[in-house]
Amino acid sequence: MEQTIYFEEYEIGHVRLTTGRTITETDFVVHAGHTGDFFPHHMDSEFAKTTPFGQRIAHGTMIFSIGVGLTASLINPVAFSYGYDKLRFVRPVFIGDTIRTRVTISAKEDDPKRPNAGRIVERCEVLNQRNEVVLVTDHIIIAERRTKTA
Amino acid sequence: MEQTIYFEEYEIGHVRLTTGRTITETDFVVHAGHTGDFFPHHMDSEFAKTTPFGQRIAHGTMIFSIGVGLTASLINPVAFSYGYDKLRFVRPVFIGDTIRTRVTISAKEDDPKRPNAGRIVERCEVLNQRNEVVLVTDHIIIAERRTKTA
Amino acid sequence: MEQTIYFEEYEIGHVRLTTGRTITETDFVVHAGHTGDFFPHHMDSEFAKTTPFGQRIAHGTMIFSIGVGLTASLINPVAFSYGYDKLRFVRPVFIGDTIRTRVTISAKEDDPKRPNAGRIVERCEVLNQRNEVVLVTDHIIIAERRTKTA
Amino acid sequence: MEQTIYFEEYEIGHVRLTTGRTITETDFVVHAGHTGDFFPHHMDSEFAKTTPFGQRIAHGTMIFSIGVGLTASLINPVAFSYGYDKLRFVRPVFIGDTIRTRVTISAKEDDPKRPNAGRIVERCEVLNQRNEVVLVTDHIIIAERRTKTA
Amino acid sequence: MEQTIYFEEYEIGHVRLTTGRTITETDFVVHAGHTGDFFPHHMDSEFAKTTPFGQRIAHGTMIFSIGVGLTASLINPVAFSYGYDKLRFVRPVFIGDTIRTRVTISAKEDDPKRPNAGRIVERCEVLNQRNEVVLVTDHIIIAERRTKTA
Amino acid sequence: MEQTIYFEEYEIGHVRLTTGRTITETDFVVHAGHTGDFFPHHMDSEFAKTTPFGQRIAHGTMIFSIGVGLTASLINPVAFSYGYDKLRFVRPVFIGDTIRTRVTISAKEDDPKRPNAGRIVERCEVLNQRNEVVLVTDHIIIAERRTKTA
Repeated sequence: MEQTIYFEEYEIGHVRLTTGRTITETDFVVHAGHTGDFFPHHMDSEFAKTTPFGQRIAHGTMIFSIGVGLTASLINPVAFSYGYDKLRFVRPVFIGDTIRTRVTISAKEDDPKRPNAGRIVERCEVLNQRNEVVLVTDHIIIAERRTKTA
Repeated sequence: MEQTIYFEEYEIGHVRLTTGRTITETDFVVHAGHTGDFFPHHMDSEFAKTTPFGQRIAHGTMIFSIGVGLTASLINPVAFSYGYDKLRFVRPVFIGDTIRTRVTISAKEDDPKRPNAGRIVERCEVLNQRNEVVLVTDHIIIAERRTKTA
Repeated sequence: MEQTIYFEEYEIGHVRLTTGRTITETDFVVHAGHTGDFFPHHMDSEFAKTTPFGQRIAHGTMIFSIGVGLTASLINPVAFSYGYDKLRFVRPVFIGDTIRTRVTISAKEDDPKRPNAGRIVERCEVLNQRNEVVLVTDHIIIAERRTKTA
Repeated sequence: MEQTIYFEEYEIGHVRLTTGRTITETDFVVHAGHTGDFFPHHMDSEFAKTTPFGQRIAHGTMIFSIGVGLTASLINPVAFSYGYDKLRFVRPVFIGDTIRTRVTISAKEDDPKRPNAGRIVERCEVLNQRNEVVLVTDHIIIAERRTKTA
Repeated sequence: MEQTIYFEEYEIGHVRLTTGRTITETDFVVHAGHTGDFFPHHMDSEFAKTTPFGQRIAHGTMIFSIGVGLTASLINPVAFSYGYDKLRFVRPVFIGDTIRTRVTISAKEDDPKRPNAGRIVERCEVLNQRNEVVLVTDHIIIAERRTKTA
Repeated sequence: MEQTIYFEEYEIGHVRLTTGRTITETDFVVHAGHTGDFFPHHMDSEFAKTTPFGQRIAHGTMIFSIGVGLTASLINPVAFSYGYDKLRFVRPVFIGDTIRTRVTISAKEDDPKRPNAGRIVERCEVLNQRNEVVLVTDHIIIAERRTKTA
C-alpha cells in the first residue's frame, strides 16, 4: 500500500515492529544460490560442527536483505533510500530462528544538497525469537519536505 | 579455496577485481521472492515507465548481496566479517547490466577490544559494464595477528 | 500489517486495487518447477508458435496464485479463507503482461453453521495492463461478527 | 505424453489417482516468494505455535496449484481448462504431509455456446497420507466432440 | 505414471521423442545457483561477447539434467538407472533454444553380476529446435527379466 | 579466479579436494523443479518408506551437477570440457548428507584431432561425510599445449 509521508511528519522515537519470519534451511540454500557465496560456514553442516557455533550460520547479507524486506509494507512516494550506515552483525542466526525488524525513527537532519528534502534515520534492529538483536543498522532515507522553499 | 592471511599481511592499496555477472530479470524476481519486497519500482514494468528511470531498477539489497557474493572466492580461516559502513546506492542497476566488484584494502586499524587482532577496511565498489560505480561500501574485517601478544 | 475487520464492517461495493506485478518468463519457469506442470503451452516457445496464441501462455493456477497473493497485504485476525467459487480463466496472460487485482465486496451472507460469523464474498478480478479482466473468481471469507449471540 | 480423448470418450465415474508428493518447508518458502504472500500463518513458526493448529499451515493456493499440477501428466490436444468451481480448503496441510490427487469424472454436459464440444467435470480431491481430503474442487474442461455437427 | 517393462520387452531400435522445453535465462540462473558454477561463460553477457560464441552458453550439466529430466514421464518399477557412458557436449545451447530428447534403445546385454536382470542401453540425444544434436550419452538401465532363473 | 594451465603442466596423480556441501531437502525440491523429474523416489517420503532405502534418495543428475559444480573454482582459459565417461551412481545420497568432490588427474593423452592440444582425464569422485564414494566419473578436458606445433 501507498502512504505519503513528508519529512515534517516523521516523528523521532516512533517505533514499529514487523511481522515475523522463520529463517529456514531453504533460505540458506536460496541465498547461497542467489549470491554465489557457498562458504562452508553457511552450507556444510559437517564443517559447521567444528566451529564455535556448532551449526551452520546465516549469511550476514541475507539477514540484512530479509530484515529490510520485512519492513517493505508501505510505499512512500515522496521518499527514497539513500543508504545504510553502521551495519553490524551482532549475533548469529541459525536455521529455525524467527526474525522480526524493529524500526525506530532516530534522527532527522537537513540534507545539505537538497533544501526541499531532509534526511531521516531509521534505526533498524533485527530481533530473533528471544528478542535479542542479531543485526543493527541505520537506514538513511531522503524525504521531501511538505513545505518547499522557493 | 582456503588461504590464511594474517592482519600483518594485508597491504593497503591492494586491489582485486572479481569476475562479472549479468543481473537478470530472474535475479529481480528471485530477490523479491527471497526478501518479500515486491515494490513496483522493482516488479512492475508499467509503473516503472512512469518513473524517471523509465524501467525497473534493482533492489539495493540485491546489488549489495550479489556484489559482496562475487568477492566470496577465498576463505580466510583467521578472519571474520564485522560489518559494513557507509553503504551507498550510487546509481541504479537495470536488467541486463553486468556487475563486478573492485575490492581495495583502504585501512588497517588496531581493534580496541581484541589485542591479538586488527581491523581491515575493504573498500568495495560495485561497477557496471561502463565501469561506473553503482554501489560503494566499506567492509570491516577482523583479522588475527600473526604475532600474538602474551 | 494487521487490521481487525468484523463482519459488520465490510461494506458491499467497497473496491480496492492492488499494486501491479509484471509476469515474467521467470515466473513461468518457477511455477512449472513448483507444480510439476511442464506442459508445452507454458514451456515450449516453438510449440507455442503453432497455437492460436502464437506464444507461451501462463498457467491458470499461477495467475490465480499470484493474483490472490497481490491482495495479501492486510492480515485480518478475525477472518479466514473458506474457498473460491466460479474461478474462470477469461483471457491468456503472456510473458511481460502486468497484472493487478481488483477486489470488490460483492455480498454478505449469514453462515448457516456459524451464528457468530458471516460470509463475505470478495469478487477478485485480475486485470492486465489494458485493464482487461484475465481471471475472475469469488473469494469466500468467514468473518466473525462484532456482536456475538449469547 | 499426449493422448487424444474426445468428449464422448470420458466415462462418468472413471477415477485416477496421481503419484504422491511430500509438501516440504521448501515449498512453503517457494510459494510465499512466488506469490508474495508472507502471512505469518505460513511463514512464522513462533506465531504459528499460538494458533489452534500449533504449526505453520500451507497456503491454500499452493495446495491447489500443486494438487492440480500432480494431474498434469497427459496432454489432451482436443480439450482445454475452462475453470474451477467450489474450491474448498477442507483440512490444513502441514510441512511433511504427502499429498496425492484423486480425479473422478463426475459429470458431462452440453456446452451451450459450443455445439461441437461439451463440458466435462473432473472432481479433484487432494488427499493426505491418511487419505483425508484436504482440498476439493470441480475442474471444468471443454472437450471437442468426436462427431461434429455440420 | 507407472508402467512395468521387463528386460525381454525392450525392443532394440525403439525410439521415443519427448515434449520440448525452451531453455531460458532463468534456467541459467537457477542452474548456477543450484550448482555453484558461476563461470562467466554462463553468467556474464559482457564476457560472453568476447568468446567465439558471442553470447552466454548453457552449462553442460544443465543440458544433461534437463535433457534426462524430459524423459522422466514413465516409472518402470522393475528397472533402475546404473549410469551413463560417453556423455558428450556436441553443440552449445543458447538462451531461447528449445530442446527435446530422443531416446533410442540401442543395445541389450546380459548383466554379468545379475543373472535375473539385464542391461539396456538407451541412446539419449538432446536436440535443439533445428533438430541438431547438442548432447549425446548412453544411459545404462538394469531391468529385471520376466523369466527368472532358479 | 582465473589460472592458465597448459596441457604440459597437468600432473598425473595430482589430487584436490573441494569444500563440502550439505545436500538439503531444498536441493531435492529445486532439482525436481529444475529438471521436471518428480519421481516418487525423490519426492514422496511415504513411498520412499516402502523402498529398500527407507527414505527419499537424491537424483543422480543432481549429485553429478552439484559434484561437478563444487570443482568450479578455477577458470582455466586454455581448456574446455569435452565430456564425461563412465558416470556411475555408486551409493545413494540422502537428505542431510554432506558431499565433497575429489579430483585426481588420472591420464593425459594426445588428441587425435587437435595437434596443439591434448586430453586430460580428471577422475571425479563425489564423497559423502563418511568418505564413501557415492558417484564417480571421468571428466575429459581438452587443454592447449604450451608448445604449439607449426
